[in-house]
This record gives sequence, structure tokens and C-alpha cells, in this order.
Amino acid sequence: MKIGILGTGTVASTIGTKLVQLGHEVRMGSRTMDNQKAASWAKSNETKASHSTFADAAVFGEIVFNCTSGSHSIEALKLAGEKNMRGKILVDVANPLDFSGGKLSLTVCNTDSLGEQIQRALPKTKVVKALNTVNSDLMVNPSLLNGSHDIFICGNDPSAKSEVTKILGDWFGWKSVVDLGDITAARGQEMLLPFWIRMMGVFKTSHFNFKIVRE
Amino acid sequence: MKIGILGTGTVASTIGTKLVQLGHEVRMGSRTMDNQKAASWAKSNETKASHSTFADAAVFGEIVFNCTSGSHSIEALKLAGEKNMRGKILVDVANPLDFSGGKLSLTVCNTDSLGEQIQRALPKTKVVKALNTVNSDLMVNPSLLNGSHDIFICGNDPSAKSEVTKILGDWFGWKSVVDLGDITAARGQEMLLPFWIRMMGVFKTSHFNFKIVRE
Repeated sequence: MKIGILGTGTVASTIGTKLVQLGHEVRMGSRTMDNQKAASWAKSNETKASHSTFADAAVFGEIVFNCTSGSHSIEALKLAGEKNMRGKILVDVANPLDFSGGKLSLTVCNTDSLGEQIQRALPKTKVVKALNTVNSDLMVNPSLLNGSHDIFICGNDPSAKSEVTKILGDWFGWKSVVDLGDITAARGQEMLLPFWIRMMGVFKTSHFNFKIVRE
Repeated sequence: MKIGILGTGTVASTIGTKLVQLGHEVRMGSRTMDNQKAASWAKSNETKASHSTFADAAVFGEIVFNCTSGSHSIEALKLAGEKNMRGKILVDVANPLDFSGGKLSLTVCNTDSLGEQIQRALPKTKVVKALNTVNSDLMVNPSLLNGSHDIFICGNDPSAKSEVTKILGDWFGWKSVVDLGDITAARGQEMLLPFWIRMMGVFKTSHFNFKIVRE
């Protein structure tokens, strides 16, 4: 499959590399044509990998991953172009984190979420919030942790969620994908982050995840 | 031990009953002397249980549990009296939930929390946020769920957290109590709630909990 990745950070390169390893063609998009991190990533992943602008990556992808930092996602998606993503699935991995105040806060939460903002900005795109609650190593390799643990998705389009659930399972190895409902559930998914950051401090690792224990 | 409980709802009566069963003397406090729910609870728990005003319960308790609804906690604590709780541990179980908008939101979050508001209102009280992330049945009986799962605490006073950890373990049966740090971690603990409410909808039960799976 042809896949577009928006962003050039650790999440973007980790997901991009995994997708290339699985045999997909991946184009990493950034603000400019000559982004050094994107060029370096594309070079290290050879023929299946390329890099270009946000818009080129959005046009290229049959499915698109938003791996930009949350505080810049809306701007990046505008550059990617609403038209270029119409009818496509956008897997939104971003978190609206703001470290500017010394302590972590979210740029949006409680009565709105980044996932909802993105869905409103791209009304004809099937936005599925996913993977934002784990470290990038775990996103593509959940078996780094022993035992079962859960990943969460939400979105307004049931068939898009089915496809993302299949991708998470077949490509990345997630055995338990919990569908939280429509895109407003992104509030809950994103609001896990202040807790997540504290847990990372307590356990001195980012390799941990939530498991929901039930009766 | 003499224990004060602020609030007369399900959380208050569940914790109060458990404490009476353990042999403690429990006084449930409410806005008025003649609260029907508090009277009924005290009657059903016989000699070890009593009910009175917020202030009387605060004076009575060597340790106090805040089981009021979060949107009324500050007002209830003012009625309980800052002086009456000086030097004491206040276990803050409340969540700042607001259902008025149709969808759940929090009355405070992100850059502040109910736990912090309470600590500021009662600067000489040792506020420990605890138990707010599980249903009341689980609070006092975590073995309702199979396998290990976690409860989280935070607060500014290490010795108070040690005492609360002991109470959670010895009295209620919690085997894994995770200390998230100072009272500002209450942001993360309280911001789990929008996710928690979604999970309850998905699983059609409130008998579930988080387990943090690590390497």
C-alpha cells in the first residue's frame, strides 16, 4: 500500500520504518522539500521510502498518518490540503502537548480535543485517533511488553475504524484494540497524557502501557 | 480509629460501611444535622456509626475522607472548617465531574485540579488524592477483579502518603499503590475520568480498573 506520513520526528520515522519493512511504499511529508530529518530517513530506508512536502505525502498516501507534534498538527494538515485527503483514512497519532509552562499541559482538552479539531478541519476525511497513548517503540511492537495490554481508537466512521483495527493487529501486532466510540472520545484518549507523563517519571521508562482489567 | 467522612452518597456510604466493619468509629458529615441518607446509613451500621454536620465529622475524625461530589467539595470543606482539619490527613476521593453539558466534562483540569484546589483551601491539612479512579465497590474490595491492578495516590506530604498507602493495603486490600508525586499529579489522576466514563460505556460495567504493564 502507499502510505503518507506527516511529520519527521521519532514517531514518524518509527512508524515509517516499520511500514517500509512490511513492504509498503512510504512518503514522509514535512513543511519543506529539503527537510534534513526526512531526507536522512528516506535515504536509510532505500527504495520504498521517499520524502517530500506535507501535500505530496497526503496525495501519495492511500492512507495517511498524522505524526506531527500536536501543537502544529492543524497547520500541518492545512498545508497537506483538505482536498488531498478527502475520502481517505487519517490515523491521528498526535497529542496536543504543551511543555512551554514548565509543567506539561494540553493545548486543548475537556470540552474539545485535537482529534475533533482535525475532524472539523477535514470533514470529508475519516479521522481515527489511535496509538497516541504509547511510546513509539510500542506503537509498532507491542510485544516489547509481556502479557496483554490495550490500545484505544475512536472515530466517526465504523469502516475506517475496522480498517485501522486490522492495520494495528496485522501490521503492528496489537492483539487488543478497544473502540471507544465517536471522535469525541479523543478527549479521553488525549487526557490520559498528563497521567502518562507522571507514570514515565515514576517508572523511569516510556515502555509501559495501560491494561484494562475487568470482571 | 475515629474517622470522618464528608458526603452521604454511594462512595461515602461504601467507604463508611467498610470502615465500620473493620471496627473503626465513623461519623458521616453532611450539610445539615438531619440528612436522611446519613441518618439511614448510621442507623444501619449501629453503634460504631454516627452522622452529623461536615464540621462535626471533621472534628471527630483523626483522619477524614472527602467523598463529596467534586463540584461541591470546596464548599463542603469550607463548612467542615479549615481549623478542624489542621494537621490531619484528608483522603480526597472526589472527582470534579460536570454532567450539565450533556457530555461529561471536568470543572477543573489541565493547569489545575480539584486536589490542588483543596490543598490550597486547607494549607495545613495533608491532602492525599486517592481512589478517585475506581468505582466505589472496588475502592474497598479490589479483589472483585482478578489479577493485579493499580491504585494511584499523590500528595505533598510523604508520611501522609505512607499512612494512606498502609490504609489502602491493610484495610481495603490494595496490593499495588503507585505514588505519582506531589499534589499536582492530581491533574493526571482526575483527567483519567473522561476516559474512564467511555470505558464504562464500552464494557457496560463500572467494575474495571487500570493496570500499568511494564517491561
